[in-house]
Amino acid sequence: MLSEFDIIRTCFEQEGLAAIPGDSVIQGIGDDCALIKVPANKMLAFSMDTLVEDIHFPATAAPGLIASRALAVNLSDLAATGAKPLVFTLGLTIPEANQPWLEAFAAGLKTMAKEFNCYLIGGDMSRGALTITIQVQGLVDDGQAILRSGACPGDRIYITESLGCAALALLMFEGKLNNVLPEEQEIINLAFYRPQPRIDTALTVAGLVSAGIDISDGLLADLGHICEQSKCSATLDLTQIPLHPLVEKHLGRAAGLSKALSAGDDYELILTVSAAQEPSFLDAVSVLPEKFTCIGEISEHNEAQKVSCIDENGSMVRSTRAGAGGYMHFQGDD
Amino acid sequence: MLSEFDIIRTCFEQEGLAAIPGDSVIQGIGDDCALIKVPANKMLAFSMDTLVEDIHFPATAAPGLIASRALAVNLSDLAATGAKPLVFTLGLTIPEANQPWLEAFAAGLKTMAKEFNCYLIGGDMSRGALTITIQVQGLVDDGQAILRSGACPGDRIYITESLGCAALALLMFEGKLNNVLPEEQEIINLAFYRPQPRIDTALTVAGLVSAGIDISDGLLADLGHICEQSKCSATLDLTQIPLHPLVEKHLGRAAGLSKALSAGDDYELILTVSAAQEPSFLDAVSVLPEKFTCIGEISEHNEAQKVSCIDENGSMVRSTRAGAGGYMHFQGDD
Repeated sequence: MLSEFDIIRTCFEQEGLAAIPGDSVIQGIGDDCALIKVPANKMLAFSMDTLVEDIHFPATAAPGLIASRALAVNLSDLAATGAKPLVFTLGLTIPEANQPWLEAFAAGLKTMAKEFNCYLIGGDMSRGALTITIQVQGLVDDGQAILRSGACPGDRIYITESLGCAALALLMFEGKLNNVLPEEQEIINLAFYRPQPRIDTALTVAGLVSAGIDISDGLLADLGHICEQSKCSATLDLTQIPLHPLVEKHLGRAAGLSKALSAGDDYELILTVSAAQEPSFLDAVSVLPEKFTCIGEISEHNEAQKVSCIDENGSMVRSTRAGAGGYMHFQGDD
Repeated sequence: MLSEFDIIRTCFEQEGLAAIPGDSVIQGIGDDCALIKVPANKMLAFSMDTLVEDIHFPATAAPGLIASRALAVNLSDLAATGAKPLVFTLGLTIPEANQPWLEAFAAGLKTMAKEFNCYLIGGDMSRGALTITIQVQGLVDDGQAILRSGACPGDRIYITESLGCAALALLMFEGKLNNVLPEEQEIINLAFYRPQPRIDTALTVAGLVSAGIDISDGLLADLGHICEQSKCSATLDLTQIPLHPLVEKHLGRAAGLSKALSAGDDYELILTVSAAQEPSFLDAVSVLPEKFTCIGEISEHNEAQKVSCIDENGSMVRSTRAGAGGYMHFQGDD
């Protein structure tokens, strides 16, 4: 059986994946610690996410896809903070040293590492149930980090692109989706395994937004996090929530909307923008490839209604409330 | 069942464990990313280690002890680099949200966090087999990091304190150790679950040593890492290897020595010191509580003998060799 050292050398210390010493990287893989320099006018942003087999992905999923999802969800946290990716560490627990699996996994990481200019700088490998912990490190200018805590009443709520396709993927994996065309399967599959961290978007708007978060837990829950940290409430116009076209097609508007509100994993950004900054924000995002949609507004803190949803008749059809025990969705909600 | 948010709030966002915003910590637990500032004349050192139940510790071990071991082995990597602990992140995968277990685990972390002034700044929690991934972040002055790569022929090899007690603990856990007094059990147990990261030592000698590493894989393997990275070989005087008194008592010198050479988990430091720096080094360590022992010398690179062991008769009784496939211990060795 391959030793841990062999695996690291063969699969992970390869060109295009491993960080190369330079201005920021002083010591990469191969010592007790990695060492980096952070420029004097910047902060280091970092985030750790763990993916567990059969909880976060099917154990039989292609290793390259598991890798791309593991790194993408972490990079999405950097995007949500407005940080530029720098390096990542990998804690990989695997049942056995299966070299073809590891090579495909490393290849998946490498593709993402190159695309986002974020290379592997260290980590650890253990035996056990397949569990992937990644910590991404990124740089953000002093005072420019996008936080959850900056939203104010009157701020407009924007999201990138559309929602629901990751939830559609989970239905597809469970065999609960019929008549999916082969080209649709590919799109849906990648929505789950290869969500698009909105790094360029975040770097473009970092100075123009009041708060931000990425949608990992679902629109209501993640907007709820902004409300909690910003001590405010929010109102969503359900008619404006953009659903992915395949969600509209396969689930219809009503069921698709339910997924968009409560299911997560799309990794689009929620950004709040003050009225004063909105013209500059719209100007800045007009050159970006992503679609931006205003879906609602931040309001004064209301203990009973953290996030309220208004339908096409102007009626409040559901809301979440702040509670000591976290999220208590209304009856019928999940 | 408690939600992830409840668990984090109740157990991990407590005073004395969670990092408090200040000069270095800009954003702690509760946003997409943690944010820190690194002083202009310093580097950030970081290391990630994963502990898996029934691989790195018995699943039935006390949660506070599991926590102290998980943080200690990471802090030891900072010590090996000469870095001062700053903050840590925790990726915790647990089979169920067992609150008493989590509270005891958090209490174990808190004790270590306070002792080493290294607080929790973020992480992730998942369901699955008990797996603990910690990444520690520390600060080291520019140009002062202890690396594996700086040893030169003629450098003397020192280690802190004594070896073998963690291996003795594993024998005790397996029921293979008889006639252990209750007070000895406690010492042996803590040697495994609460190894002492040699932070103060490392900070004291950082500018005086040529290379360093902590002993996690065993003396031969870890000294071998220094030899590989420094492109040299090493000779150990077996008569000088300090064994823990309980190792001498329960295993005898010969069997104890075998454990000291090949078993890991003691987390003592190996430090190499040039002849020119040795007087300053000895002067500096004379005020430290740890015992330091010179156990050998670095020599010119020898492909066939990476680490050679000399017995009381001056005979070479074993050696490791550098090989493409990593460590190839001689026959009879494990």
